[in-house]
Amino acid sequence: MKLSNRISTLTGDGDDGWALLYRARALKAAGTEIIDLTIGEHDIRTDPSILAAMNESAKGGHTGYASVPGTKPLRDAVASRVSARTGVPTTRDNVLITPGGQSALFAAHHACCDEGDTAAYIEPYYATYPGTIRTVGAIPRAVPVQADNGFQPTATDLAAARGARSLLINTPNNPTGVIYTRQTIETISQTVLENDMWLISDEVYDTQIWRGEHLSPRAIDAMAARTLVVGSMSKSHAMTGSRIGWVIADAPVIEHLRDLATHTTYGVAGFIQDAAHFALTDDPELERRVGAPFERRRKIAMDILDTQNTVRLIPSDGAMYLMLDIRGTGLSGDSFANTLLDHHNIAVMPGESFGQAAAGHIRVAMTVDDDALAEALRTLCAFAAGLLPEQ
Amino acid sequence: MKLSNRISTLTGDGDDGWALLYRARALKAAGTEIIDLTIGEHDIRTDPSILAAMNESAKGGHTGYASVPGTKPLRDAVASRVSARTGVPTTRDNVLITPGGQSALFAAHHACCDEGDTAAYIEPYYATYPGTIRTVGAIPRAVPVQADNGFQPTATDLAAARGARSLLINTPNNPTGVIYTRQTIETISQTVLENDMWLISDEVYDTQIWRGEHLSPRAIDAMAARTLVVGSMSKSHAMTGSRIGWVIADAPVIEHLRDLATHTTYGVAGFIQDAAHFALTDDPELERRVGAPFERRRKIAMDILDTQNTVRLIPSDGAMYLMLDIRGTGLSGDSFANTLLDHHNIAVMPGESFGQAAAGHIRVAMTVDDDALAEALRTLCAFAAGLLPEQ
Repeated sequence: MKLSNRISTLTGDGDDGWALLYRARALKAAGTEIIDLTIGEHDIRTDPSILAAMNESAKGGHTGYASVPGTKPLRDAVASRVSARTGVPTTRDNVLITPGGQSALFAAHHACCDEGDTAAYIEPYYATYPGTIRTVGAIPRAVPVQADNGFQPTATDLAAARGARSLLINTPNNPTGVIYTRQTIETISQTVLENDMWLISDEVYDTQIWRGEHLSPRAIDAMAARTLVVGSMSKSHAMTGSRIGWVIADAPVIEHLRDLATHTTYGVAGFIQDAAHFALTDDPELERRVGAPFERRRKIAMDILDTQNTVRLIPSDGAMYLMLDIRGTGLSGDSFANTLLDHHNIAVMPGESFGQAAAGHIRVAMTVDDDALAEALRTLCAFAAGLLPEQ
Repeated sequence: MKLSNRISTLTGDGDDGWALLYRARALKAAGTEIIDLTIGEHDIRTDPSILAAMNESAKGGHTGYASVPGTKPLRDAVASRVSARTGVPTTRDNVLITPGGQSALFAAHHACCDEGDTAAYIEPYYATYPGTIRTVGAIPRAVPVQADNGFQPTATDLAAARGARSLLINTPNNPTGVIYTRQTIETISQTVLENDMWLISDEVYDTQIWRGEHLSPRAIDAMAARTLVVGSMSKSHAMTGSRIGWVIADAPVIEHLRDLATHTTYGVAGFIQDAAHFALTDDPELERRVGAPFERRRKIAMDILDTQNTVRLIPSDGAMYLMLDIRGTGLSGDSFANTLLDHHNIAVMPGESFGQAAAGHIRVAMTVDDDALAEALRTLCAFAAGLLPEQ
């Protein structure tokens, strides 16, 4: 029996670029002690206060169908948060609650792209982007940006997006840790306006800003009507497993997204929405506490990296990652990462996993404790120095 | 800005057929006391023991990303349940856990149908069916079945499905309460095999069997390879708000569905999966207790309906609904339901809400307490009798 062409080709050539991660897991499963710097997930659990709020809601009877687009209190809380952070007037009619950021990415592309449309995304990119585009029958087109420009998209880079129906960006960025400057956001907006495209702006790391500031493109003139913002509580509140996120968009877009939700998810568990509402409103300091370890570890990492010249840190302004340029060693990111794993039991992601634009780089997730990270980085730097053809 | 054609046309002509339900809600909101027999949701909450299991799991730390296709224990539990009930050997490789039955319906159609394919479904139908088909870009085609044949599809009815890529059935059936006989399932299987179609079998009411037995088409020769079964704990365990369900299919189909899940949901909350696992394994009597009120109320309803001849009950063998033939009154289901609401503050669903195949019928959800249901049915019968042109 033949499955749909769409689902059969969803993963492209079948290589998801995560071979190293699977190899590291296999080694771990076989008993090898691995320092795992591959994973974009906190080394803490969801805060007990949030879980207590969820339990209270469930025991209180919020166990039936919840409103499909999201509960009014949660949509209101998200809307006022977005208003406060972006300066763009936002109401509950601009908010669809989704079961996680990935679901929001899917919904946003479904709303913008028909079968056969081209959907562009910036490379290096988060692993699921091309497949998400294929899921709605659209054709993914990578828009590579340059390491030597700090992975900030330029007008020249963005010319590759011409003719696409939508452009997907992510700032603060996974995998690079880069935050797009105001100039970058303005250049992106200009490209989108000139080419009559939709902009899908993945801002799930918007609470993890270590330097500079985060500007949502929805705040740029004329962009609110054509921007769909993807948000989530996974990274901001260490609620990865709760699967709770949202799309922010113009009210007519949200109306259609509600129809889509009716036919794809039928909404999000009410007790999870109540827990999210608690997290957003009752403890505004929580997201700072959740982000603090990454800011602290970034400082630790910068101090270590400052002592050498082989490995170069791409300015790491946000999120929980460090992108390291290891081109000086002459190795590809892939070779570097595999050799590091074999010789030192340290697992990092090859830049190539995120597209060829990140070739010759590795991504380090700062998701282990401070001492383990420091030791791993020292070993990594020494390993890199040892690869130099001559000292 | 133009949204995708697919999302713009998702709701068809925009009339979801639920006008009566919205009118009843508006009356309630305005303070009128309505006996609401429209809702397919239990009048009980999720059992506290299940919520306690969820809380234990969450507090125990299962708050990070869970395995995308579902946890092994839950997939194993669902697989052994399916094996035991259907006789078809089923392992975890045949199971994808989804955030609810609707998500499973979407995923199944995504796997089977490409843009422009025709996807058939039996009418009368559950409200989301045509929109779910449109969500994946396929073209919905209703296959009407006959009230006078007890809404059992016949070979003649099924000829309308020829040329479709997939056929969607639902047994025990919402809205009719009918359970497909072995002969019906064999006729459906023959049609599917002869026309090289996929069969999507929505079996979310498979624990609510009041007469006869439920036969999953996956148990018919040669059908396992081309059948995708949709399951859920919403109806069986009063877990509507927890959004937990599954697809059962051939292992290669599940592999592709896992890819789809990676790009649409990124899995289901681990603590909800643990709660579901508890419900399926630690308290096998629970689903009987959840179903018992509907069996009891069906008996009450049959006793009341037996005392008159105006309203005819379609044999109600399963699920939580009664389908009543009110053609004897000369009214359409729509007129009957609206007049009943206006004169007696009783809300039932017009048959037409589920397609013209149910015209001249009304659906009564047995989701209010026994006494309220009995009183409403007595009023309904007296109202129907009063509509007869002559006594």
